[in-house]
Formats: sequence, structure tokens, C-alpha cells
Amino acid sequence: MLVVKVGGGKDLHIDAIVADVARLWQAGQRLILVHGGAETTNEIAEALGHPPQFVTSESGYVSRRTDRRTLEIFEMVYCGLLNKMWVEKFQQAGVNAVGLSGLDGRIFEGRRKDRLRVRVNGRRLVLRDDWTGTVERINTELLGLLLDNGYLPVLTPPGASDQGEAINVDGDRAAGQLAAAFHAEALVILSDVPGLLREFPDESTLIREIPRARVEEFMSFAQGRMKKKVMAAVEAVGQGVGRVVFADGRVEEPVSRALAGEGTQIG
Amino acid sequence: MLVVKVGGGKDLHIDAIVADVARLWQAGQRLILVHGGAETTNEIAEALGHPPQFVTSESGYVSRRTDRRTLEIFEMVYCGLLNKMWVEKFQQAGVNAVGLSGLDGRIFEGRRKDRLRVRVNGRRLVLRDDWTGTVERINTELLGLLLDNGYLPVLTPPGASDQGEAINVDGDRAAGQLAAAFHAEALVILSDVPGLLREFPDESTLIREIPRARVEEFMSFAQGRMKKKVMAAVEAVGQGVGRVVFADGRVEEPVSRALAGEGTQIG
Repeated sequence: MLVVKVGGGKDLHIDAIVADVARLWQAGQRLILVHGGAETTNEIAEALGHPPQFVTSESGYVSRRTDRRTLEIFEMVYCGLLNKMWVEKFQQAGVNAVGLSGLDGRIFEGRRKDRLRVRVNGRRLVLRDDWTGTVERINTELLGLLLDNGYLPVLTPPGASDQGEAINVDGDRAAGQLAAAFHAEALVILSDVPGLLREFPDESTLIREIPRARVEEFMSFAQGRMKKKVMAAVEAVGQGVGRVVFADGRVEEPVSRALAGEGTQIG
Repeated sequence: MLVVKVGGGKDLHIDAIVADVARLWQAGQRLILVHGGAETTNEIAEALGHPPQFVTSESGYVSRRTDRRTLEIFEMVYCGLLNKMWVEKFQQAGVNAVGLSGLDGRIFEGRRKDRLRVRVNGRRLVLRDDWTGTVERINTELLGLLLDNGYLPVLTPPGASDQGEAINVDGDRAAGQLAAAFHAEALVILSDVPGLLREFPDESTLIREIPRARVEEFMSFAQGRMKKKVMAAVEAVGQGVGRVVFADGRVEEPVSRALAGEGTQIG
């Protein structure tokens, strides 16, 4: 099994990703794609007069403030606009894709954080009307059913809480749990940088290889969104995923290149 | 098999529909739900500065002008906001729902109308950049797979053209084709009226029964959105669906009441 995670950045070469995934799929590779949509969500949220807010957890991670209205906008963009864009492109490439959120069939199931302790502009707050959470279980049965019958699963947040509520879950970490649940040989995480950089944003400082035992040490090089990708890698290799690759999603054949050794190879 | 179609009107009693469908499902009824979203799509399209336009076909049917931007907004609302709202409510009611569009797995497959001959304000026009079409085939294999494994399919437009493009298809007629493909014993179409009215909008003029052989004659009583529901009924009973019921979606236990004889019974 190969899991491909595509970020939500606007510089990604979507058509190259679709063509490359379609080629691998048609050659018989068992594969699941997970996509994000953060940048487009920010734009649509602005346009709808409910601009995005970000909060910093006590441990220093930045995440989207997800009140009910934000959750609705999030679902519009991730599950509507972008998920169906990916599915349409795969259908046009001859791949019978099925787009699902982690809420459907509880594919990404986890715990809702009913109190979120955060800092906003330096002030400490406890948020209660927030719909975020962490993926703890993957519905491998439903995904296996689709794969066994020739359907490419195209997955996206939100997930489902154990109460059945929609929860905003991190896409990279969900992809990590997914790869772990399937004992995947590889998790390829594509974004708009060539991999983990020793001195962000200098692309000449690409870290080419990280032994699986030392991945946590490299957390200090991760900036912004890359922090959760490194955390996803720590969780995935810790649970037996063959390797995790951070690779450039702006180029031709981005998945094949990642599998051939480009980007940051962890494992 | 029972197919329940729920319109996109804002007066529908969504929680009553969910509770009723959940009860039937948990009692072992094989069931698929199809939902719309026209009113909410109009609101979001206004808010995003791309207000809805409607066109009238040469045969007198009103449909949404679906340029590419409208298709995207349509997907945001139908597949994102509303489909995930239904799935979340079913998940909270203990039903393992899976929300899919007709594009996913080509569940609703058909022909894109590459030229749409319409009248706009009396003028005749041929539209070429329009993404609408008609459902001709149902992927019963994928839906059967979900049903056989305990998942309630929650479906919504768009569909897929034979080229894999997303196409805006009429939800009522898609539900009619779906019911026909499964040789359903009943198709229940819920909306914000009690059924087909002899003198719209006078609810005391409800037509209680229509013999299947005479359903086309009753087309003359249908106003606006009801026209496509009558067309869906003609197509469904013509292809062997046991009966079609137009029933009130604003009341408690709306599906059970429809099955017990309320509304307009066709068949």
C-alpha cells in the first residue's frame, strides 16, 4: 500500500499529481490519496465574511480555530470544491475514484477536544465551542472494500468523533495514521517545498535522509505547517510504515520522483 | 429497497427525516437517501458574488445555469455543506452513513448536454459552457457493496458524464433512475408541500392517488419544481418501481407517513 498526501497549497501541480497517481494506479499499485485545502478555505472564509482565525496550542502548534461556521466552510471547501475537483480529474484520467471525508463511514475516527487550551495574541484561553480532534482509528474495512473492487479512495478531513460529530483533524497526521493502519510501504507527503529544509526557506539546505530512529531530533528544523508533517512522520514510522517521504508537489511525476529517492527520505 | 429523496427547501424538518430514516434502517430496511440543496446554493452563490441564473428549456423546464463557477459553488453546497450535514446527523443517530456524489464511482452516470438550447428573458440562446446532463446509468454495484456491508448511502448531485466531467443532474430524476435500477418497492419524494396539488398552493386540493397508467395526465397540475418530480415519477413507475409517493417533509415521521398512505400515492 502507498499513501499519498497532498497539501492545500496553491502552487501544487495538481494535474501532474493526478497523472502520476493514475499511472501508478493503472500499473496495479494499491494506493489511497489524502488531500488538504487550507489556503482555499482561507479565501472562501474571507469571501463569506468569516475570516480564518488561528490559535496556538500550549505545546506551540498552530491550528485553525474551528467554530461551527468555520466547520461548515471547511466542509464546503475540503469535501465539496476540492474533493470533487480531485475526483473529477481522476475520472477524466480513467481512474474510478471515490471521494470521501473521514466522517463518512467514520473513516477517520477520533476524539473531539472538548476544551482547547490555547494562546491568542499571548493571552491564555480555553475554547469550548471548537470542533477539532485527533484521529485514533481508521476504518480499514470500508477502504479495503473500495480498493478490492477497483475504486481509488480520495480522502479528506474532517473526521468523526466517537459521538459522530464532524471534527477538524490534521490531514498529515490522518494520512500518517492511515499509512500505519495499512502497514503501508510508503507515505509520500507532497507540499510546495522540496522537503525538510535545514534553513527554511533556503531550498539548497534540503535534508536528504533521516534515519527512522532520529526523526524526532529533526523536529527543530520544521517551521509552521512542516511541524505537523514531521509529527506525522514520527507517528507513521513509529508504527511500522516502511518510509515517509517529504517531496515537492510542484514538479512533474512528483510521486514517482519521491519513490525514486528525491525529497527528504525518512525510514 | 426504499429510496428517499429530500428536496433542498429550508422548511424541511431535517431532524425528523433523519430520525425516521434511522428507525427504518435500524429495523432492517434496505434504503438509500438522496438529497438536494437548491435554496442554500442560491444563498451561497449570492454571498460569493455569483448569483444564480435560471434558464428555461424549449420544452418549458426551468433549470440552473451551470457555468464552471456555478458548478464549483454547487459542489461546495451539495457535496460539502449539506452532504456532510446529513452524514453527521446520521452518524450521531448511530447510522453508519457514507456520503457520496453521483460523480464518485460514477454512481449517477449520464450524458452532458454540450449545447443547451434555452430561452432567457424570451430570447433564444445556445449555451456551450454549461455543465448539465441527464442520468442514464446507476452504479448499483458500488451501492450494493456499501449496503451489503452496513453503510447507508447518502447521495447527491452532481453526476458524471461518460467523459468523467461533473454534470449538474436533477436530483429527483436521479432518484427515480436509482429506484428503477434497484427495482425499489417505493420512492418517497419529500418536499415542502403535502404532495401534488390540484390548485397550487391550496393544500386542501391534494391529489391523493394517481394510477400508474395515468400519471402523465397529471403533469398539467405540476408547478415549478414539481414538474421534475412528476417526470421522475413517470420514469420510475414506467421502469417498474412499486410506487412513488410525493409527501410532506415538514412533519414528524415523514417517511413512515408516506409509506402508510399520506401524500400523493402513484402506482
